[in-house]
Amino acid sequence: MPTPTDDDALFAGTRAMFALPDGVIYLDGNSLGPLPSNVAARVARTVQAEWGAMLIRAWNDAGWMDLSGKVGDRIGRLIGAAAGTVMVADTTSINLFKVLDAAIHLNSERSVVLSDTGNFPTDLYIAQGLTARLPGRRMLRTVAPEDVMAAIDDTVAVVMLTEVDYRTGRRHDMRAITGAAHDAGALVIWDLAHSAGALEVDLAGTGVDFAVGCGYKYLNGGPGAPAFVYVAPRHQDGIAPLLSGWIGHAAPFAFDPDYRPAPGIDRMRVGTPPVLSLEALDAALDVWDGIDLARVRARSILLTELFIAEVEAACPALTLASPRDAQARGSQVSFRHEEGFAIMQALVARGVIGDFRAPDVLRFGFAPLYVRPEDVKSAAAILAEVMDGRLWDRSEYRLRGRVT
Amino acid sequence: MPTPTDDDALFAGTRAMFALPDGVIYLDGNSLGPLPSNVAARVARTVQAEWGAMLIRAWNDAGWMDLSGKVGDRIGRLIGAAAGTVMVADTTSINLFKVLDAAIHLNSERSVVLSDTGNFPTDLYIAQGLTARLPGRRMLRTVAPEDVMAAIDDTVAVVMLTEVDYRTGRRHDMRAITGAAHDAGALVIWDLAHSAGALEVDLAGTGVDFAVGCGYKYLNGGPGAPAFVYVAPRHQDGIAPLLSGWIGHAAPFAFDPDYRPAPGIDRMRVGTPPVLSLEALDAALDVWDGIDLARVRARSILLTELFIAEVEAACPALTLASPRDAQARGSQVSFRHEEGFAIMQALVARGVIGDFRAPDVLRFGFAPLYVRPEDVKSAAAILAEVMDGRLWDRSEYRLRGRVT
Repeated sequence: MPTPTDDDALFAGTRAMFALPDGVIYLDGNSLGPLPSNVAARVARTVQAEWGAMLIRAWNDAGWMDLSGKVGDRIGRLIGAAAGTVMVADTTSINLFKVLDAAIHLNSERSVVLSDTGNFPTDLYIAQGLTARLPGRRMLRTVAPEDVMAAIDDTVAVVMLTEVDYRTGRRHDMRAITGAAHDAGALVIWDLAHSAGALEVDLAGTGVDFAVGCGYKYLNGGPGAPAFVYVAPRHQDGIAPLLSGWIGHAAPFAFDPDYRPAPGIDRMRVGTPPVLSLEALDAALDVWDGIDLARVRARSILLTELFIAEVEAACPALTLASPRDAQARGSQVSFRHEEGFAIMQALVARGVIGDFRAPDVLRFGFAPLYVRPEDVKSAAAILAEVMDGRLWDRSEYRLRGRVT
Repeated sequence: MPTPTDDDALFAGTRAMFALPDGVIYLDGNSLGPLPSNVAARVARTVQAEWGAMLIRAWNDAGWMDLSGKVGDRIGRLIGAAAGTVMVADTTSINLFKVLDAAIHLNSERSVVLSDTGNFPTDLYIAQGLTARLPGRRMLRTVAPEDVMAAIDDTVAVVMLTEVDYRTGRRHDMRAITGAAHDAGALVIWDLAHSAGALEVDLAGTGVDFAVGCGYKYLNGGPGAPAFVYVAPRHQDGIAPLLSGWIGHAAPFAFDPDYRPAPGIDRMRVGTPPVLSLEALDAALDVWDGIDLARVRARSILLTELFIAEVEAACPALTLASPRDAQARGSQVSFRHEEGFAIMQALVARGVIGDFRAPDVLRFGFAPLYVRPEDVKSAAAILAEVMDGRLWDRSEYRLRGRVT
């Protein structure tokens, strides 16, 4: 067990690798991770020394063609996935579409995709779109998060869940649910949007079939960074991709008229990779070199426990929306208040950046790589000032269609 | 009709807007457009002043959320599409998947997707994947390019073609085929990968139903730039997207559990947009401000005619693979030679960058924005030296799996 001093030094080192603006306590890395300092130079190099100077030759000579798999392997290390099982491509929504179609196809005797009402909406939308269009009586069934285990029966083809709830931070037990699903003959898909870089994830050890996740939250890959997709080795060569694009072909530059999927994880690729965004993500991952997720998770628990204690002591009008048990919680803490939107705006105006999720959730993410215990105390103190003084603009009750 | 002098001045001005490396004649902008000089500063600003300094607030305050449609409208001007009919998103392959599914659905009584053997393989692959998975006896039928018109009958749901053949530059008659398809009750999808920024395209005037295209060829948006998708206004609100992601929802930040597609072209969005790549593409489009595609096309014909004349005069061992009639040709010229790969490598080593397409095609793209008549003459002269002196390495017969 590392001493607190060891951890302070470790995370002071990682914090120094970010370009954080002055006067800001950033508790929204679960929505958009901040800029690692090395990214600007890397992107500039890609634009000028590679695209500009090497032109088309950079696809080979600068390694652009192989970058998607290389970055996938780097993410793999953070989620317990072996080399050759993670590909970076497209968006989380589209990657979910790929693996949901694959899972339904692999378990085609069954009709139900099981998810929960706490899942991020895009996951539900993708499942709605796909089940409505595929042949057979496929359907999406959603239950309350606490009812998932009981709802796994022999009609379920696929259990499709997000490990950590985007609003409350409630965390599913990935190992238990994966085991129960397998016992019932179902496959599992985990969305790791709020897990990768926040929690210890052990995809291989847990026997997960498929996973997807986001490059721009705790992995700090930049706005709209490409997403990742994991396929367990046992399934890879059994997938007939519905999104059958040329970069996922066994020989893209043979220009075959017929699609033949590439071996292994490469068939999860579709079109030409977004090089600028990929290079930014690759550079951003340098922060993680040598970092042990167990220490990140321990530090995250320290930070979230501290925030809950400080806010509950000072802000009685706020109701904890997250699980009180740290093991049942991701790396975020949420509180409810009916004027939450306006309160969050007041906080942001005072340099504490969290975000708001309708209808009443104030959401705070704690990324140990750059959030310190003293930031947590300051944020709680500023929140207490706002609450005590009722310093928010009550006319700003809610604003639709904006990101924050 | 502009005088040659006017055109020389116009295109000297556009050429000055690119960061072209010294000692290179770049005839591969049909694969990857070169770097416009303003892109590096724009991307640096996005990374540092927006992502770095504004953090999550940049989604609203820097306009990231609206960028996909804004850039779509800018591309729309270049392809004869009204505002609100073009969206920038994802890759060409994935956009084709969206509109092919939509078209099949809109014409669901019919079973055939008609394409041609000269189509870019990813288009055929996407159609193979989709028709195999959808209910009903859907099928992809491919015929020779010259047989497309005759193959349009009342079984055809969708005619799906690329206007300009990626290998030979052969150009379909978009107006005639679209009209014939409509007369037969079929819908049309045009892939504009080698058209946008190269030819005059009039999607609205031609009555095209759907189109897709590429951001990184003649539009110079950078490696893996996001692609675009066009949907005619009459079809937009009738589409039930199969790729039903949250950014295409009518109210993404309401976090509804049920998918409701956004009005209009916005439902062609799926996941979070790739901001760095989008900003690069937006900046790259500045080169096109005020440019009339008719002048670009006239200049392109001048360049390709000159290249064909010079090469045919000096290189009898090369066989023209492109149509001799300029009107039947896009903005590229291809020649065949059985040792084409090695010849292209020798040319590239001498600063003339074209590319090779298996099995035997040497491909040269002519983008008037930065390729001058004197470049064409120089390139032809260097090609003649290579051919006369047999200056290529015959051991380098062919190299698989590389981009060039």
